[in-house]
Amino acid sequence: MRKIEHIGIAVKNLEESNLLFEKLFGNPPYKEEEVESEGVKTSFFMNGPNKIELLEATNIDSPIAKFIEKKGEGIHHIAFDVEDIQGEIKRLKKEGFVVLNEVPKKGADGKLVVFLHPKSTNGVLIELCQDIKDE
Amino acid sequence: MRKIEHIGIAVKNLEESNLLFEKLFGNPPYKEEEVESEGVKTSFFMNGPNKIELLEATNIDSPIAKFIEKKGEGIHHIAFDVEDIQGEIKRLKKEGFVVLNEVPKKGADGKLVVFLHPKSTNGVLIELCQDIKDE
Repeated sequence: MRKIEHIGIAVKNLEESNLLFEKLFGNPPYKEEEVESEGVKTSFFMNGPNKIELLEATNIDSPIAKFIEKKGEGIHHIAFDVEDIQGEIKRLKKEGFVVLNEVPKKGADGKLVVFLHPKSTNGVLIELCQDIKDE
Repeated sequence: MRKIEHIGIAVKNLEESNLLFEKLFGNPPYKEEEVESEGVKTSFFMNGPNKIELLEATNIDSPIAKFIEKKGEGIHHIAFDVEDIQGEIKRLKKEGFVVLNEVPKKGADGKLVVFLHPKSTNGVLIELCQDIKDE
């Protein structure tokens, strides 16, 4: 794990929250992207070596809709940048962490991603992400 | 705001969580520190340019005790590194953010800190921190 790649924040209204975080950082999001498989539309802000991802649900079954219903808007997950996602999955399983999807899936912003179950990580939803390399 | 300085995670038992996060990062915390004024003991892990701060309450009136009672263990705040904390306070107030303490206070890890009210930041407790410079 080389750094915090991004923090994911669940929001009700992406457009309004984009304006809010633009005021905070002094810059608008550098991209917006819909991830249909996850039922979310997202925007990304740069902050030095890190990013902030805002996530709005696009349907009521989206994990983000459920999160907001239960806990309200706020920090949803931390994503760490890894070089070798398969190696990290193997290492972390051996250490007792619960990996939610053992086969990495395609996330937003050109990444392969896996999630660790918050029950095994002090209530923190942790994402590992690796850049998708062109073959 | 130059980067994510650290993510603060509320935990029930610092000793146990230190072991858990040591497994996650492959390294032990580089420091532990009690902040009496906040009613917490903390530990810090390095992760590239970023840090993870674990926080355990030392009394029942601690903000961390109240957070865990209400929401359970998990991510408590994001801290951004700033160069000029007074200038940022002034700028963000003008933008409509609610600053919780207008006079920066001494936090853990040699920092001056202020917090923004989550009501003004999409439910996210945001800390700004600046290195304390020797005069």
